[in-house]
Amino acid sequence: MHMTSTQRARVAVAGASGYAGGEFLRLAANHPHLAVGALTAHSNAGASLGSLHPHLRSLADRVLAPTSVEALAGHDVVVLALPHGASGAIAAQLPDDVLVLDLGADHRLTSPAAWEQFYGSPHAGSWPYGLPELLHASGGAVTGRQRDVLHGATRVAVPGCNVTAVTLGLQPGVAAGIVEARDLVAVLANGYSGAGKALKTHLLASEALGSAAPYAVGGTHRHIPEIRQNLAVAGAEDVTLSFTPTLVPMARGILATATARLAPGLDPATAADAVRDVWERAYADEPFVHLLPEGQWPTTAMTLGANTALIQVAVDAAAGRVVTVTAIDNLVKGTAGGAVQSLNLALGLPETAGLITEGVAP
Amino acid sequence: MHMTSTQRARVAVAGASGYAGGEFLRLAANHPHLAVGALTAHSNAGASLGSLHPHLRSLADRVLAPTSVEALAGHDVVVLALPHGASGAIAAQLPDDVLVLDLGADHRLTSPAAWEQFYGSPHAGSWPYGLPELLHASGGAVTGRQRDVLHGATRVAVPGCNVTAVTLGLQPGVAAGIVEARDLVAVLANGYSGAGKALKTHLLASEALGSAAPYAVGGTHRHIPEIRQNLAVAGAEDVTLSFTPTLVPMARGILATATARLAPGLDPATAADAVRDVWERAYADEPFVHLLPEGQWPTTAMTLGANTALIQVAVDAAAGRVVTVTAIDNLVKGTAGGAVQSLNLALGLPETAGLITEGVAP
Amino acid sequence: MHMTSTQRARVAVAGASGYAGGEFLRLAANHPHLAVGALTAHSNAGASLGSLHPHLRSLADRVLAPTSVEALAGHDVVVLALPHGASGAIAAQLPDDVLVLDLGADHRLTSPAAWEQFYGSPHAGSWPYGLPELLHASGGAVTGRQRDVLHGATRVAVPGCNVTAVTLGLQPGVAAGIVEARDLVAVLANGYSGAGKALKTHLLASEALGSAAPYAVGGTHRHIPEIRQNLAVAGAEDVTLSFTPTLVPMARGILATATARLAPGLDPATAADAVRDVWERAYADEPFVHLLPEGQWPTTAMTLGANTALIQVAVDAAAGRVVTVTAIDNLVKGTAGGAVQSLNLALGLPETAGLITEGVAP
Amino acid sequence: MHMTSTQRARVAVAGASGYAGGEFLRLAANHPHLAVGALTAHSNAGASLGSLHPHLRSLADRVLAPTSVEALAGHDVVVLALPHGASGAIAAQLPDDVLVLDLGADHRLTSPAAWEQFYGSPHAGSWPYGLPELLHASGGAVTGRQRDVLHGATRVAVPGCNVTAVTLGLQPGVAAGIVEARDLVAVLANGYSGAGKALKTHLLASEALGSAAPYAVGGTHRHIPEIRQNLAVAGAEDVTLSFTPTLVPMARGILATATARLAPGLDPATAADAVRDVWERAYADEPFVHLLPEGQWPTTAMTLGANTALIQVAVDAAAGRVVTVTAIDNLVKGTAGGAVQSLNLALGLPETAGLITEGVAP
Repeated sequence: MHMTSTQRARVAVAGASGYAGGEFLRLAANHPHLAVGALTAHSNAGASLGSLHPHLRSLADRVLAPTSVEALAGHDVVVLALPHGASGAIAAQLPDDVLVLDLGADHRLTSPAAWEQFYGSPHAGSWPYGLPELLHASGGAVTGRQRDVLHGATRVAVPGCNVTAVTLGLQPGVAAGIVEARDLVAVLANGYSGAGKALKTHLLASEALGSAAPYAVGGTHRHIPEIRQNLAVAGAEDVTLSFTPTLVPMARGILATATARLAPGLDPATAADAVRDVWERAYADEPFVHLLPEGQWPTTAMTLGANTALIQVAVDAAAGRVVTVTAIDNLVKGTAGGAVQSLNLALGLPETAGLITEGVAP
Repeated sequence: MHMTSTQRARVAVAGASGYAGGEFLRLAANHPHLAVGALTAHSNAGASLGSLHPHLRSLADRVLAPTSVEALAGHDVVVLALPHGASGAIAAQLPDDVLVLDLGADHRLTSPAAWEQFYGSPHAGSWPYGLPELLHASGGAVTGRQRDVLHGATRVAVPGCNVTAVTLGLQPGVAAGIVEARDLVAVLANGYSGAGKALKTHLLASEALGSAAPYAVGGTHRHIPEIRQNLAVAGAEDVTLSFTPTLVPMARGILATATARLAPGLDPATAADAVRDVWERAYADEPFVHLLPEGQWPTTAMTLGANTALIQVAVDAAAGRVVTVTAIDNLVKGTAGGAVQSLNLALGLPETAGLITEGVAP
Repeated sequence: MHMTSTQRARVAVAGASGYAGGEFLRLAANHPHLAVGALTAHSNAGASLGSLHPHLRSLADRVLAPTSVEALAGHDVVVLALPHGASGAIAAQLPDDVLVLDLGADHRLTSPAAWEQFYGSPHAGSWPYGLPELLHASGGAVTGRQRDVLHGATRVAVPGCNVTAVTLGLQPGVAAGIVEARDLVAVLANGYSGAGKALKTHLLASEALGSAAPYAVGGTHRHIPEIRQNLAVAGAEDVTLSFTPTLVPMARGILATATARLAPGLDPATAADAVRDVWERAYADEPFVHLLPEGQWPTTAMTLGANTALIQVAVDAAAGRVVTVTAIDNLVKGTAGGAVQSLNLALGLPETAGLITEGVAP
Repeated sequence: MHMTSTQRARVAVAGASGYAGGEFLRLAANHPHLAVGALTAHSNAGASLGSLHPHLRSLADRVLAPTSVEALAGHDVVVLALPHGASGAIAAQLPDDVLVLDLGADHRLTSPAAWEQFYGSPHAGSWPYGLPELLHASGGAVTGRQRDVLHGATRVAVPGCNVTAVTLGLQPGVAAGIVEARDLVAVLANGYSGAGKALKTHLLASEALGSAAPYAVGGTHRHIPEIRQNLAVAGAEDVTLSFTPTLVPMARGILATATARLAPGLDPATAADAVRDVWERAYADEPFVHLLPEGQWPTTAMTLGANTALIQVAVDAAAGRVVTVTAIDNLVKGTAGGAVQSLNLALGLPETAGLITEGVAP
């Protein structure tokens, strides 16, 4: 389906009661080419959207239907914001010409083995991957970007939030062959909305305020195989990654510090300019991914509510490592904004339609 | 000046380095009828906007000029985001047909005596007051709203952030004569951006995090005479107000708890419906001020980044008081969003142009 | 039971898995005259204390038993940190000569009618009230303090946290007859630990961070009758109180802004010295309640982890009201520290044993 | 000087107005063997301690003198909490038999070259290093601990806060030869008090709240040579370290995620037990450093206000790295508590005197 500038595509959202679904609706409500159609939920069916997401003023009176294929029928776009494992069965029953975006994990991994290792359930198959800026590269040369794959797509697997941050931070160096893809280390500061609305003691405000807390340490996080997959697309032959997220007291945001060893043969003492040049060229024309001026480092507040990824890179000559820091809003560029960006591409709209780059700061 | 739908008014911002100026620019950058022109500053002249407000991506390369009448000349709109006392002299030199919005306090108070008592400097005179929803009332009947005054205005005094929250919370009952305007009590939870970018020890993150701190206690806050002035417009004969703001660990937001005694003759035990009805009618048609459904209370997160004011009201029968709680984003509805709303009215644009009602939550 | 300086009283804690029980244990672990005995819980029976309260290092290996009278037997002191309604039955089966402290609400209110109105269940009866600084007054003269009642007590009802803050803030003026007890207004900024460990969506960190949220607005909060009861002890004939707590993004702390009208006959313009004098005399000899020097206002961070209440008072002459601000740590002076203070009095120990006044700031 | 159990050593604090000095005083005020003597400051001389540190209730009336050798004379202990570069000159004039603890950096590094590279000023010489748990090792065998050096010392260089966290996290594996000391990567989440009281825009609450922000990225942080020095003591032959601190919205706390490659020859798939055993043995008898039970990860809240370091370790078999996470309170175990611990050793007191292990949580 391709849109003309005066049409609005009707979009249904399954799983509208959660944070991902709510954030997609926040963006959809102000998107010039979208009209919000059916909203569905599981345990919250029957509730008004205003009782669940009181910040979504223009949609407050909408009532959630139980999630079913029938409720989602008759829309141009269906967004699935469901727990992993739930979207495969529904997606299989939706018509082929409807654009389906899966905000969950089910269709991201191309390797059934990787899926089964990290999720422990049967693989639902993979869809075109919704990270338009993902570099396709081999032999140190960029051959394309993922947005080429997304034009006209009817199925999109929206990336994980941590994956977006780490991939964007590291891929220029990997694609250029200027860093090693072995022995990557990424440590992230994560806002609590990334953990969803689940009622767990460690997610209570009383536990979170004034504290920093790691989770999924030691190679168990499900975003690891997805990062490895992306960096392979960006040209890496063999990726190993130590990945540690830490919850810090903010509602939104990911600050990803990701480091890679400089490739053998490069002199760390003189590599800074070449490194900066590689990152600069990778993102010079990207509307949503910006390398900051030298010396300015990203913070998550700069990206709050915006579809922007801000990146800085430095060479630590003594350590022989390139250090990148990437800031995104996990619910926007990391989830719903990335989905809108892919939706725009899939529908033939301007890639930036309905998305803003200005963060809500301070 | 009245705009057609395809024109963009050129707007200059004096004081672009502060939070109020930055927030106006965040909104202006995404406003369909505005084009950002000259940006000026005092000590930050010569710096790029990106170095001061790195979240304003589309304007990052703009360079700030020194604030002067010359720099501000040749624009359709001039926004003054200056320390109080500084805007009078500049405004006096701007052409009469240029729309000038003062985000500072200089032109808000109509009473020179009240100005001098609270600010201790000569009064610069008063301008049309930029709170479109302000009720004009007398004898218990609403006679108009402030937006009528703002159509075609060329000077607008944008209200104080606390004033907006307290006025919106209390004015329906005052205008209807259903509450007393004597012995009002308001206590506010305030985000730190309301204190500006001044470098003071008590505004440091290390001091603020995990703490709540009152300030300007005991009748000294400069927003008190402005609230009294507003409620007089809303029909009050004699206003007394105990007003206490408290800084709490959030960047933005005001949660104003404001209480008033029920008017004599009303039975507290049975007044709830009448009270709710008064508030409901006051805001039924307002695009940005919403009375929440019964039982749902506003939080500041619901309004983050949006031009929305959310209100709830209850009767405490045992205390004989009406309690209202109002949530706004101090920098949007409380400052820059309110300014855009007045700008829209002054330029003959749709009142809602360039403004959104959906908050960035969670 | 009276302790000598070398003895340690053995204390059992029922409800050791919650925040109140945990905080009591934090203080007990460093109390020179207490030895921690049995720990019990309901759904967490069988778990180690270290898995529930990993901050309590010296007690981490203790295992929680199911709550029963048998498990609590054989101790000198029993602390009940149970949901309201649960302590009455257990307390009735404990020997009369065992010191029992109830951190819950069951035994605070002397009026069965007030209990039933606010709690909707049968009244368990009232115990000596554990606020040592509570003034006993009549006719404008202080006749004693509650600590006199607590010496040698074997049952103590520990006050509610909000009650402690509001009572300490207002009682000097009430006892002296310098303010009216009618038409009091209190608005509080509350840390999230006051809401306990219950798994509710609005208590999630993602909802709380960056937000302020009111609750129990309009005269419904259960701490209202307890404040009224205290101020009656302090000499008030008729108390009416508008009371609004607001959750703000901090783990601990209460900042209570409480205002009262100046008594008729006092000239607001000249009352400041007399007012200050009344508050100063009320707390001059108190080890844990401090009136700050003129011009310095309390913040919650100043009291974090300490048994200190910090107070400031001002007269708002134009409003005709006295404004008091009181800061406490809700879990220390507001709960477990207040309990230790009463325990010390009951056991004949120095009132300050095991308690510190220095807050953990910044 | 060695203390008997009834004596109190008189301690003077130079730089009492800052966070480090204030925190030392918080601990000293409740230390059974210390008496607080002279307090000095630079620009705050003449102010009361209560106006600068209102949380230090028992010392609120103390007045700060200008910092001078005379003011510090006549004490048993002098604590220097001064900006780096300032303590050398003062320390040189203090008698040899006075115990001097430098909370600043001046006397930490043994290598003049490392000092000059990172600080750019002449080296003041090195003092016994105040990290009692620092392992002395060579050839994979522990030969002693730093506390042996501190018994009876009269000069102590207190470690940097980040250094303490990273050293404690990594040293067991380094000392045992089970991990490589080359290519270490550490990323830290840091509370804002670690940045001190300096008035800088990026330290304002409005900037910090809701945001995570990196600083000193790319090998420039001054704590890097100190960590390298410590790990050399712990037996490393050649240390390289990528080190990135990030400020997150909390007042206190460091959560250090530090990773090291498993030593060659170890099978990552089976190394977990051996690794855990090494960390367990390193800290089995330490009063303040605790390896948490398997599966439980440290958070900074667990250590707030306490002298405790909590550590967990895991093997990421796919990445071939050991991942350690260490939580401390930067002002306690990371600064003033560590200083008291060394002071206790130097004075012949119990190492744990005046220090507690229970954190203030939640």
